[in-house]
Amino acid sequence: MTYVDLGFARVDTDRKRRCGFPEVIYCEGKTPDEVAAIAKTILEQDGVLLGTRATPAHFEAVVKLLPQARYHSRGRCITLETVLLPKNKGRIGVLCAGTSDLPVAEEAVITLETFGNQVEKIFDVGVAGIHRLIVERDRLEGCNVLIVVAGMEGALPSAVAGLVSKPIIAVPTSIGYGASFGGLAALLGMLNSCGSGVTVVNIDNGFGAAYAAATINRLLQSAPTGD
Amino acid sequence: MTYVDLGFARVDTDRKRRCGFPEVIYCEGKTPDEVAAIAKTILEQDGVLLGTRATPAHFEAVVKLLPQARYHSRGRCITLETVLLPKNKGRIGVLCAGTSDLPVAEEAVITLETFGNQVEKIFDVGVAGIHRLIVERDRLEGCNVLIVVAGMEGALPSAVAGLVSKPIIAVPTSIGYGASFGGLAALLGMLNSCGSGVTVVNIDNGFGAAYAAATINRLLQSAPTGD
Amino acid sequence: MTYVDLGFARVDTDRKRRCGFPEVIYCEGKTPDEVAAIAKTILEQDGVLLGTRATPAHFEAVVKLLPQARYHSRGRCITLETVLLPKNKGRIGVLCAGTSDLPVAEEAVITLETFGNQVEKIFDVGVAGIHRLIVERDRLEGCNVLIVVAGMEGALPSAVAGLVSKPIIAVPTSIGYGASFGGLAALLGMLNSCGSGVTVVNIDNGFGAAYAAATINRLLQSAPTGD
Amino acid sequence: MTYVDLGFARVDTDRKRRCGFPEVIYCEGKTPDEVAAIAKTILEQDGVLLGTRATPAHFEAVVKLLPQARYHSRGRCITLETVLLPKNKGRIGVLCAGTSDLPVAEEAVITLETFGNQVEKIFDVGVAGIHRLIVERDRLEGCNVLIVVAGMEGALPSAVAGLVSKPIIAVPTSIGYGASFGGLAALLGMLNSCGSGVTVVNIDNGFGAAYAAATINRLLQSAPTGD
Amino acid sequence: MTYVDLGFARVDTDRKRRCGFPEVIYCEGKTPDEVAAIAKTILEQDGVLLGTRATPAHFEAVVKLLPQARYHSRGRCITLETVLLPKNKGRIGVLCAGTSDLPVAEEAVITLETFGNQVEKIFDVGVAGIHRLIVERDRLEGCNVLIVVAGMEGALPSAVAGLVSKPIIAVPTSIGYGASFGGLAALLGMLNSCGSGVTVVNIDNGFGAAYAAATINRLLQSAPTGD
Amino acid sequence: MTYVDLGFARVDTDRKRRCGFPEVIYCEGKTPDEVAAIAKTILEQDGVLLGTRATPAHFEAVVKLLPQARYHSRGRCITLETVLLPKNKGRIGVLCAGTSDLPVAEEAVITLETFGNQVEKIFDVGVAGIHRLIVERDRLEGCNVLIVVAGMEGALPSAVAGLVSKPIIAVPTSIGYGASFGGLAALLGMLNSCGSGVTVVNIDNGFGAAYAAATINRLLQSAPTGD
Amino acid sequence: MTYVDLGFARVDTDRKRRCGFPEVIYCEGKTPDEVAAIAKTILEQDGVLLGTRATPAHFEAVVKLLPQARYHSRGRCITLETVLLPKNKGRIGVLCAGTSDLPVAEEAVITLETFGNQVEKIFDVGVAGIHRLIVERDRLEGCNVLIVVAGMEGALPSAVAGLVSKPIIAVPTSIGYGASFGGLAALLGMLNSCGSGVTVVNIDNGFGAAYAAATINRLLQSAPTGD
Amino acid sequence: MTYVDLGFARVDTDRKRRCGFPEVIYCEGKTPDEVAAIAKTILEQDGVLLGTRATPAHFEAVVKLLPQARYHSRGRCITLETVLLPKNKGRIGVLCAGTSDLPVAEEAVITLETFGNQVEKIFDVGVAGIHRLIVERDRLEGCNVLIVVAGMEGALPSAVAGLVSKPIIAVPTSIGYGASFGGLAALLGMLNSCGSGVTVVNIDNGFGAAYAAATINRLLQSAPTGD
Repeated sequence: MTYVDLGFARVDTDRKRRCGFPEVIYCEGKTPDEVAAIAKTILEQDGVLLGTRATPAHFEAVVKLLPQARYHSRGRCITLETVLLPKNKGRIGVLCAGTSDLPVAEEAVITLETFGNQVEKIFDVGVAGIHRLIVERDRLEGCNVLIVVAGMEGALPSAVAGLVSKPIIAVPTSIGYGASFGGLAALLGMLNSCGSGVTVVNIDNGFGAAYAAATINRLLQSAPTGD
Repeated sequence: MTYVDLGFARVDTDRKRRCGFPEVIYCEGKTPDEVAAIAKTILEQDGVLLGTRATPAHFEAVVKLLPQARYHSRGRCITLETVLLPKNKGRIGVLCAGTSDLPVAEEAVITLETFGNQVEKIFDVGVAGIHRLIVERDRLEGCNVLIVVAGMEGALPSAVAGLVSKPIIAVPTSIGYGASFGGLAALLGMLNSCGSGVTVVNIDNGFGAAYAAATINRLLQSAPTGD
Repeated sequence: MTYVDLGFARVDTDRKRRCGFPEVIYCEGKTPDEVAAIAKTILEQDGVLLGTRATPAHFEAVVKLLPQARYHSRGRCITLETVLLPKNKGRIGVLCAGTSDLPVAEEAVITLETFGNQVEKIFDVGVAGIHRLIVERDRLEGCNVLIVVAGMEGALPSAVAGLVSKPIIAVPTSIGYGASFGGLAALLGMLNSCGSGVTVVNIDNGFGAAYAAATINRLLQSAPTGD
Repeated sequence: MTYVDLGFARVDTDRKRRCGFPEVIYCEGKTPDEVAAIAKTILEQDGVLLGTRATPAHFEAVVKLLPQARYHSRGRCITLETVLLPKNKGRIGVLCAGTSDLPVAEEAVITLETFGNQVEKIFDVGVAGIHRLIVERDRLEGCNVLIVVAGMEGALPSAVAGLVSKPIIAVPTSIGYGASFGGLAALLGMLNSCGSGVTVVNIDNGFGAAYAAATINRLLQSAPTGD
Repeated sequence: MTYVDLGFARVDTDRKRRCGFPEVIYCEGKTPDEVAAIAKTILEQDGVLLGTRATPAHFEAVVKLLPQARYHSRGRCITLETVLLPKNKGRIGVLCAGTSDLPVAEEAVITLETFGNQVEKIFDVGVAGIHRLIVERDRLEGCNVLIVVAGMEGALPSAVAGLVSKPIIAVPTSIGYGASFGGLAALLGMLNSCGSGVTVVNIDNGFGAAYAAATINRLLQSAPTGD
Repeated sequence: MTYVDLGFARVDTDRKRRCGFPEVIYCEGKTPDEVAAIAKTILEQDGVLLGTRATPAHFEAVVKLLPQARYHSRGRCITLETVLLPKNKGRIGVLCAGTSDLPVAEEAVITLETFGNQVEKIFDVGVAGIHRLIVERDRLEGCNVLIVVAGMEGALPSAVAGLVSKPIIAVPTSIGYGASFGGLAALLGMLNSCGSGVTVVNIDNGFGAAYAAATINRLLQSAPTGD
Repeated sequence: MTYVDLGFARVDTDRKRRCGFPEVIYCEGKTPDEVAAIAKTILEQDGVLLGTRATPAHFEAVVKLLPQARYHSRGRCITLETVLLPKNKGRIGVLCAGTSDLPVAEEAVITLETFGNQVEKIFDVGVAGIHRLIVERDRLEGCNVLIVVAGMEGALPSAVAGLVSKPIIAVPTSIGYGASFGGLAALLGMLNSCGSGVTVVNIDNGFGAAYAAATINRLLQSAPTGD
Repeated sequence: MTYVDLGFARVDTDRKRRCGFPEVIYCEGKTPDEVAAIAKTILEQDGVLLGTRATPAHFEAVVKLLPQARYHSRGRCITLETVLLPKNKGRIGVLCAGTSDLPVAEEAVITLETFGNQVEKIFDVGVAGIHRLIVERDRLEGCNVLIVVAGMEGALPSAVAGLVSKPIIAVPTSIGYGASFGGLAALLGMLNSCGSGVTVVNIDNGFGAAYAAATINRLLQSAPTGD
């Protein structure tokens, strides 16, 4: 059987085989009890639990069933590993433009570490003080993949893309004055980046960026194949 | 009398006294004959003619009445001066992020020069190759005001704002792939600029930026007053 | 070294030299402790502290470290100066269309005064009673720069632009019935102003308008230079 | 029978009795032959023909069937009266902010005149030269109803509303630089007018404004009734 | 003097003469003390007080200064008359599509009555049960003006416009499932009404509709004039 | 008489005859007392009560008048039947993409059951684990109609449409990260479905989908007629 | 094999078995030669060809390969049947609000007839003359399913839904003045319909509505089954 | 020197060293002569020329200067290599949902091949016939990276993400009926994908997706490094 049917949820227990990572719980809109039951099932099957967009109420229900679960309040994540995923070589850089973008960056960092990656944090390097970014060029180029988190106009990925040769995944945040329209400004800015090859995930979706970066990094662990 | 009534138009002949510059013709939506009649009235009153968003058909009608009028096809402007506005000291910088933004930049340059300003052109300095911008820092700082024209994500004003201490007027352009949505991405990017003090004009409105810059530059021609 | 690295923030201590004003803290999305630590660093380096979008919780953390800090509740700002910026000659006008726009106007006033400018306040002069504005024409023309704050349809900058020859910076506010869409109506109105030379900042961004106006005013303090 | 069924159209021949005016043809999206057939039916029933959004091709088909029909090219209307509607006392003012708004204003004027109203035209009185409007205060107050046509930021109705005591119907036009978004800026501006009592019709809908104004004016033709 | 300057507000005391009705207070965004001070000034000048979008906190401050003021909680209005406006002949109809639209309808009713009009209420006559509307045809036609309040798809004004010959002012409300987008659906529906001559005010703006209707009704109180 | 007039509401008592189902109360924006009074009237007339978007406060008022009423908290519905609607043959499938979509699915289920339908629940079968859906193909094909509830990108209806031959009604939900924009992403996704014949209802409108499905299912209860 | 691979296309030859109707060609964005090759493959497999959004150039290429193909220019469809689908009992009603909506209605009619359905056409019955609709009540109720096509405010489905007990599929069209925004107004209107059970397809998507209606009608051809 | 200044353009000749690929010309908005001059400069420096969004007029100017240049009309690209980039091991998959998406897919293919990658084409595998996709699972998993191109609801990347473990870059296209809003529906769909780790580029931006994929593939050519 490739999934466990809890009635209100079908936990995809075949996912790790197919996609490389176990299922992750998106907690928003689920009741605490539902989250806890799904969490228990995933942990039993895959040994690695990650819940995103979790409220303290979600965590309370989970920790009753799984007392070793941890809550990361700024990144709003629940984690617990009984089986460690293999530790990857190389690093993934997580940049953010301003301190206000930290909650989204933390969601990315937690996801990356849960999935076995080492993280290089380079925070508060927005383009309004571009020298703070340029001095980090070597550290950036030394990473396998870069996640760039920014709100407001979302210009940081464009600047980074012009400095390095590594894949860049941009995460717009909902930080900004009125016409940021909940992150729309940063999202459109990143989609229209003049920096070639920048790809983009949903607003405030630190998890999604980390998942994509971890997928690339996992590929890099083996020697090249094919013709 | 403070205006001339042509029936279909009331040419504001008091404007130069009140606002410092003569009236300018926004040609879009006007018939060629209307534009020509307004042009003649303005020139007679103020000695300086500027028509923006002018089509070749507009120009044909104008040049019949005013044979010395000139047409600037890329910037879509008609100009003619019989009385030169005083030449201002200092320069106004016009930057653009990419070659595709040149038509809008040219509208700004023509407006600035018609209004008596000297222009410093710094083209194709987008943030994807930030070194092309940084080498120009002194030239930028040497200007009184900077107009920064950019499409796509509109990130250039933010980068410029972090390098210099001069007023920056940003002009979003409608250049870009699909989700630029006719310049909306660049507009929102500039309005949300993390570079403090950037102000913004309408999409593709090179004229408006130049008018604002010229207003600041005119102020700078006199010694400071007041307490 | 041109910045101080606090881990979660890189305080740009070179900014005053490059851009003319010290760094300002945008408090939204930052924890109170982060704001307080950044505030202390900026004050030590530059002697002038300004925090915008500050909640009472932010202020509480700041005032513990910096007991002389002041909180401006309507404008949501924290300020403290240990070194006074030079007092500029001339005045900057701050207009608002209605009493409901006062919080945004106050953010502008606090920023202007913190940066050494004298302010002329002209409040509640919306176009629905245009005579209230017209009687102020001389006071308006007497200012070096005008900041015009308005919600609803954002028409005030257009009317002001037709009366005076000074630079106008328009600030849309989020005040209005349903279809103001959080200030979008005023923003679009100002961007489309028929009053030539109006430039615009983000919705409710009194700080940004003040920063731009202060930049222009600083320029005006010296005699004209260049050819 | 209260309508004539042409298969592709049901011409509402009871409309004049119910609503006070005969049916009007909205030509867009109809073939020339359909327009001509509907036109003939309406004229036979009601003696007054008005077709809006008519192309020259529409007119060609109509004039074949109804040789006395007239085409108003700037307002894109077809008209023909075999029975004159009664001439109303008093005037309806049609204002427009700029010359570029004339096509929409003309659609309104043709509709008003076809429906038996006298029109006062007050063109090119935008708020950027507010004195051009203020000198017309008495002429405005002398009208029964005012139609105010404006593009760009659509500020004119607000200014007019503050000057007079008459009903004001605002028509946004699609004239403007990029971020007018096809008239959205003017539409939102008018809906958010700080001038109390301004009502609004669709973008470029001169016909709709005229129909509403004519309805009010018709009411005014009789002495007051009721308790 | 044509206005009273309270520092934070300029109360327009000339408004009643110019526009026919005294100034009304839009309370949103004003502090309770500001509202109370403005209220007192208006009442002293004009004898008729109307405050819209008033919270209980606003009312508390007003009633301390003006103990006879009344609060209408569902319509969120404060009223007080010391001088009664003349009672108009005839009635103004206020229709609403559903019971959920009552708060907006009540704002209209209060405004109409404060301004001396008699109101005919016809509630819950949405197009999903069109027979409930059709049976009211004579009552509708018996009114001088009709205000039609509707949320969701905002179809009611179109249906009413096809039944009667009176001016119709449509008010979209923010009532509806997800894709009403805060009243946008109803607003667009009304602006695009196939019912000729429908004019529209802002979302949830019962006051604006009432003001416009009262303006028309006031006109109807005198016998027709002019040629 | 075809409706009962409660003053604030006209309860449509002819609806069951015309449309096949009794009137349903949309509780949002109504006071608890209004809901209770309408509920009592409907129950007396039709014997079947359904209130959607009901808060606990609504229910409290209803249960005082109708002590046997039941509240379904997750689906936010109030129900009570004194006359059972006839039980239909066949089943209606209700699918949802994720556990977070359950509240909307429950609104659909309650509506369906209140209207006499049998429901097949197939939950958590999103396209990210398409095998969970494909194994259910026979159960899906065995239903008369399918309601497919999904948030995020709303892709599930497209996948279902390619597997079965039954009518599919898609319900977008407001579940998702930032750029779901309150369900807009799922709504647009479903409207643009490449799966032919998918029809769509409003965001989070489980009731509407169920009503449409129940209408189809009622039709299916009789043998085919006509030529 | 369940599809034919043409390199640029995989024609789904299993679709008729799974979904009940053969594959249909959406011609937009395909070259004429691609359309022709796909057309030939579908006809050989299924005997029924339908191409939507076809230009004359598409048809020219098709008719070279399949000389008996027919082009329906107003509905922009190509059709050809070598095997007739079984003729269904009962009728499907196609209503449209105005003559301008006919092209979309025709796309629906062609699709319905190609799929073996009989069509009842009821055109030009918009809510502005609601009597034209009400007289058709019996014809409407006599249909199995109703497709309702409307532009502008899209109010017709709501009115129809209040009159009959049959499933209603609404099709918004892009017909309308400025703020119809390409059919957005009608789309939102229909999604927010107060008429319970209305479901909606994409703007101008007559094909999609017909496909859904034909699916329901096919179900109705057999006697009811199940418990 | 790290760039060549052509006056209207600054060709970034340092880009290949910094970012791994030479500069590419975005032709839109540039004159043919500008494109040709930039093309010549790039070819001389880097030996690899790629121009995107090129019209035939652009190509004509280029081919005069560089007679061996090739034009790819469906993908609107100009290419020419005098120095071949090294051939990468492994393949990059390019999927598209429908034949109408081919122009965007071709832009991606040309970019990939110009940059030295081998491409696996898997076309017309939309989710409406999901079996066409599932049979390709092994071919998909055999690629290093997958580019997934889709219009309409953009659901294909979600389905692919659930089947494989490789990085997925999604490209929304502007193909679709009315409410695709120029690709907005597909864009939002992809950003909200329930398939973890999907990253997204701009609408119709096949080039951007290919650049990002090529960046990842280049990384994979070397054995893993680091700790």
